[in-house]
Formats: sequence, C-alpha cells, structure tokens
Amino acid sequence: MSSTQGQVIRCKAGKPLVIEEVEVAPPQKMEVRLKILFTSLCHTDVYFWEAKGQTPLFPRIFGHEAGGIVESVGEGVTDLKPGDHVLPVFTGECKECRHCKSAESNMCDLLRINTDRGVMIEDGKTRFSKNGKPIYHFLGTSTFSEYTVVHVGCVAKINPAAPLDKVCVLSCGISTGLGATLNVAKPTKGSTVAIFGLGAVGLAAAEGARIAGASRIIGIDLNPSRFNEAKKFGITEFVNPKDHDKPIQEVLAEMTDGGVDRSVECTGNINAMISAFECVHDGWGVAVLVGVPNKDDAFKTHPVNVLNERTLKGTFFGNYKPRSDIPSVVEKYMNKELELEKFITHQVPFSEINKAFEYMLGGEGLRCMISMEN
Amino acid sequence: MSSTQGQVIRCKAGKPLVIEEVEVAPPQKMEVRLKILFTSLCHTDVYFWEAKGQTPLFPRIFGHEAGGIVESVGEGVTDLKPGDHVLPVFTGECKECRHCKSAESNMCDLLRINTDRGVMIEDGKTRFSKNGKPIYHFLGTSTFSEYTVVHVGCVAKINPAAPLDKVCVLSCGISTGLGATLNVAKPTKGSTVAIFGLGAVGLAAAEGARIAGASRIIGIDLNPSRFNEAKKFGITEFVNPKDHDKPIQEVLAEMTDGGVDRSVECTGNINAMISAFECVHDGWGVAVLVGVPNKDDAFKTHPVNVLNERTLKGTFFGNYKPRSDIPSVVEKYMNKELELEKFITHQVPFSEINKAFEYMLGGEGLRCMISMEN
Repeated sequence: MSSTQGQVIRCKAGKPLVIEEVEVAPPQKMEVRLKILFTSLCHTDVYFWEAKGQTPLFPRIFGHEAGGIVESVGEGVTDLKPGDHVLPVFTGECKECRHCKSAESNMCDLLRINTDRGVMIEDGKTRFSKNGKPIYHFLGTSTFSEYTVVHVGCVAKINPAAPLDKVCVLSCGISTGLGATLNVAKPTKGSTVAIFGLGAVGLAAAEGARIAGASRIIGIDLNPSRFNEAKKFGITEFVNPKDHDKPIQEVLAEMTDGGVDRSVECTGNINAMISAFECVHDGWGVAVLVGVPNKDDAFKTHPVNVLNERTLKGTFFGNYKPRSDIPSVVEKYMNKELELEKFITHQVPFSEINKAFEYMLGGEGLRCMISMEN
Repeated sequence: MSSTQGQVIRCKAGKPLVIEEVEVAPPQKMEVRLKILFTSLCHTDVYFWEAKGQTPLFPRIFGHEAGGIVESVGEGVTDLKPGDHVLPVFTGECKECRHCKSAESNMCDLLRINTDRGVMIEDGKTRFSKNGKPIYHFLGTSTFSEYTVVHVGCVAKINPAAPLDKVCVLSCGISTGLGATLNVAKPTKGSTVAIFGLGAVGLAAAEGARIAGASRIIGIDLNPSRFNEAKKFGITEFVNPKDHDKPIQEVLAEMTDGGVDRSVECTGNINAMISAFECVHDGWGVAVLVGVPNKDDAFKTHPVNVLNERTLKGTFFGNYKPRSDIPSVVEKYMNKELELEKFITHQVPFSEINKAFEYMLGGEGLRCMISMEN
C-alpha cells in the first residue's frame, strides 16, 4: 500500500504548454489513482486543445494515451491494486451493460467516450484542483499529469513485464488501427488491403494487415513523404490521389482486377470514406471506417455498390474492449508478433511537452513518447 | 434418354399475354433443355415486361422462377442427365471464377444475372424461334414455355422427391429473402429483426428470422392489408410509416431500446434503405439491402452512423450459389424446417397466365403457381 494513499497529491500536470503544480484528490468509489510514467500525444489531444467546433471546457488537463502504475484504489475496486501496471483508456468497459455483454460491441453504455464530460461520473466533480478551483478532466484520463484519477472501467491491467514506454501507445491510436484490421476488416492470408491515410492509426492498420498475412498492402496518402517510412509497416505499394486524374477507387480497381479485398479508412475525410467503400471488390469486399468525420459530412454512394455484396463497417477503438482485450494486445507485443518501436519516433521529458505538440503540428513522425519521470 | 433429344421441339410459350407455338432448338455445348412443369410469376418479370427504363428487347419469353425436368443435355454436360429434377436460376455458378471460388460471393463472373442479354453465351444466338425468326431469352431462363434451354451453370439439381409445384418458388424470390436473413443478416436466437416490405421476398426474409429463432420480428409496410397475412410468416409486430410523423428509424429505436439487432430491406425504396440502416442498434446492428433501387438513387447517411459500429451489407439471391446451395434449401423444405405452402396463394393453368399478371399488378397474394401441364 502506497504512502500517498488517501492523501491529496501535489504534482506537475500539463495543461498543454503550461506545466503547473496541481492537487489530485484521492480516488472515490470505483475509481483508481494512477501514477503516469509515460504518455504520448495523439491528434485528439491537439484537436480538443485547439477547441475547434466544440464548446471549450478549460482549464483542463489533456492526455489520454499513457502507461502507469496504480497508486491507490477507491471503494469497490477489487480487480486492481496498488502497483499494478496499467494502461488508462479513453473509453471504458463496465462489464454490465448490453454492449459489454455483447461479443460484438465495445461501446459501453456507461463509459463510452465522452468528449464533453470534464468531471467524474461518481459525483460530477473533478479530482484535479489548484488553489481550490477545479481543473477539468479530459476523456476520463487526463494523462498529462504525474498523477491522475480514472474510473476503474477505463483501466486495462497488463503484464508487469511489458515496457510501459512502448505499450503506452496501445492505449489509443495503435490499438484503434490494429483492431480495425484484425477485428473488423479481418483480411485473410494472401489478400489485398488498401489503407487510406498513413498516419499512426493507418500504419497500425497496415501492421494489422501484415500480421494477418496480406500479400498486397496498398497505402493511399496525399503526402508522398510518408511513403518511405510506411514500408516498415508492411505497405507494399503507394498511391497518391494527386498523381491521378480519376477517382482513386477506379485506380485501385484497375490495380487489383476489380477491387481490393479489404479497405481501412483512417483519415476522416468524407471523400476518402466513399473511395474506401467503392474500392472494395464486389462479392466479398469489406470497407472499415475508422477516421472521425466532420459534423456535417454525408456518406453517399449508389445503393447498387452495396447490393453487389460489398460490406461497410465502422469501428471505434478497433472494436477492442479495453479491460478484456487490451492485455492480450500487449501480449502480442511481448511475443514479438506486433512491433511497436517503429511507431515511437520521438522522445521528450515532460518538461519539453511543447516539443511533442510541435512535432505533431508539423506532421513530423508518428508518436512522441513523453517521459513523466525525467 | 428422351425421344425428343437432338430434335427441335415445338411447344407453347408465353410471351406475356400471348401464347404461341415456338420452336426450341436442342441444347448446345454446356447447355441443357428443360421441360418446365411449374413456373411462378415474380415482380422482375412484370418489371421487364412493362419495359420501364430499359432498352426493350422483344419478342422474348419471360419467366425465371420455375421447376422442371431435364429433357436433354448438350456437349460437355456431365453433372446433369435427362430426367433429373431441377430448378433453373436467373444467375449462375460456373465453379471456375474468383467469385465461385470465394466462400463469400455468388456473383459469378461468367453467369451473373444479365438483364440485357437475350441470347445464349455459347454462340450469341437464341434457342427459341418462330417461323425462322428468333425469339429472345430472358434472364437466361425463359420459363414461360413448356420447354426452354438454359446454361448448365444456371441449373440446380434437386431431390427428385421434392414437389416441383412447391419448391419452384425457391428459384428466385423466396431464396432471395430467406438467404438475406440466414446467410447475411444472421440474426442470433432471441434477437430482434426488422423487415422492410412485406411482399414475397420480405416475408421470406421473415421466415428466415423465424427459422433463426428471432424473438421479435417487426414488419414495416405502407399497406396495412398485408399485416394479417404476415403473421403466418413469424411477424410479431407491425409498423406502418403512415401512422407516424417522425422517421421510422426513430420509431423503431424507441420500440427496441436503441435499435433492432438486424434489418432486411426488401422494397428497393431509397428512403426505406436509409431507414433500414439507421434503425439498427449501434455496437452490433447489421442492415442488409435486398430490394433493387432506381438508377439515380443515392444512399446517404451520416458517417457517424457507420462509425458507431453498424454494418451495412448488400445481397444478391440471398448469397446462395445456385448449384452448390439451392439443393440444401430444398432439403430444408423437405425436413419441414422451411414452409413454402404459405407463399403460394394462387394457382392457374398456363392457359390462364394472364390471371397471374393480374393478381400481381393488383397487389393480390404472394405467388401464383402456373402449371404448364394443365
């Protein structure tokens, strides 16, 4: 049992670009307080930090891709104890609702991602404060802090031998792309897979196709500088829509004798979504949407494209249930089936978190690992 | 071996509303000549007879839902012989192409439905003529004739004990609806299924849901006179969009705590397609499109409806491969698992085929069985 258990913790936390000392209250019923060792920056943090098209909720602590250790647990928490190695996850698994009981869904009724909620479910209050004033939570995780409080349903207990500075990236983007391919698109050995968007999520989808034994993995991106790096992730061919004067679904159909077997859309661009659907082969093609669209977008296709036995699916966090499934993804890394090192292109100490934002805003690299202890 | 083998056959054939004597040439390479015993009328016959929105191809012999006996076989046909009981099918299975070799597709490259082709593949000629002038084929079947010639890939050999005046309906509409549910939507026992459109195809989809053990089967139709009959097919609840002033997907979501588990769209109306997709539950819902849309329709939905883990699929002939799978559907009838009698609401002799058109145009009944021998 940790000496800090039950006490308010004063620690450094980064509201992006400003690091201040905050107070972190003890975990309440069904909550755990985590010591964050590593956190990485994901586009979602930047998107909400920029506060475009949302009701801004400030001050708050961003961060949701992280790895840490349980410091203390609140009332009712039985399956976690201080010292456990964990990944906090931005969406949860209560294990009681219809979604959690369904083999197909991971969209928990109680703990599903909520980008507007800045407080804990238990009492509608924050666990962060400074000089008595509340500081809001973000995605239920707020990992840009040395300590954070998270609902137990949003914490995956993992193998303590797993290096947290690597498996950290499984708590959001990499699992999202990997699961989109392995759990939803499910390409068979020898098949052809198209990946739209070669950022971290798209490359994780490519990694999934590589693991599944796809023989052709076609990467589609507007930025040719991504192509070389993408080869490490199993991408065998590159298509830049800018190099063609016809719809990219037609280009792909010509390359593949009628269409790819599977496609995974990781950009969130509505036209890419439509192309990703229309580029799959009739009879058996499956398109999986991952990227988050704009509020007013409309997905539009001729219904005959559906009737000709194409399948359109969407996925959220790669269809992984955070508590039940993420520990086994960590094991895939431990077994060397899944490679994670190649996703981590930068590393900075917490004091230089601004650099991580700069790398991402500059489109540089994939993941910047932020070490909280340096 | 039949005494008519190798000879031109003179017989009665119905170009709708006119019955004339025609000549039916012997089957050529990979073709079989069938004696049709029963044929039934499907909307597709009426649609092409009315020749709306297509290039009309006349004179031709309609009809594609039928049961008969092999009269003779052409060169290269080894798996059928005179006397075999068969169902001709409007789409085929060559057993050689990528689609036929795929476990998922039934959209054969060689013999996929072709509504424009009025001749045989082998030589580009018709097998029907009158006074030396060609009469065109329809859907490769032309079953409104005492004899017809069909490609061997479009013929399912069935159990000779099966009554052809019942299993006849499996050669098109009933298999289409049944397979949409059993092969594509795949509801689990106890689930909730919505069926859009309660014509023969929709009721066959409901029959599939009943066989699968669905606990709630909700029928949606604009015509309330269909509701009573539909109960025989397992429909447990009825919704008429005319009775509601909000989108029917919202009505269904309220009835089912967030959405149905599976939906099957059998009307071809574009708005019904969109409703059928949006009415399935997030996390696990699957919508299956069966009905054929208009040429200029656009399927349109917010991509978040997809991202929230809904699946949209299309199917053609219920995903059944005609030769490989239809014999086992006949066995489902023989085992009394599948009921077919309730689909056959009228019976007429061939001489009264006009009545079958009248019943269908009047929206009366489901299938009219036309007996060629009376």
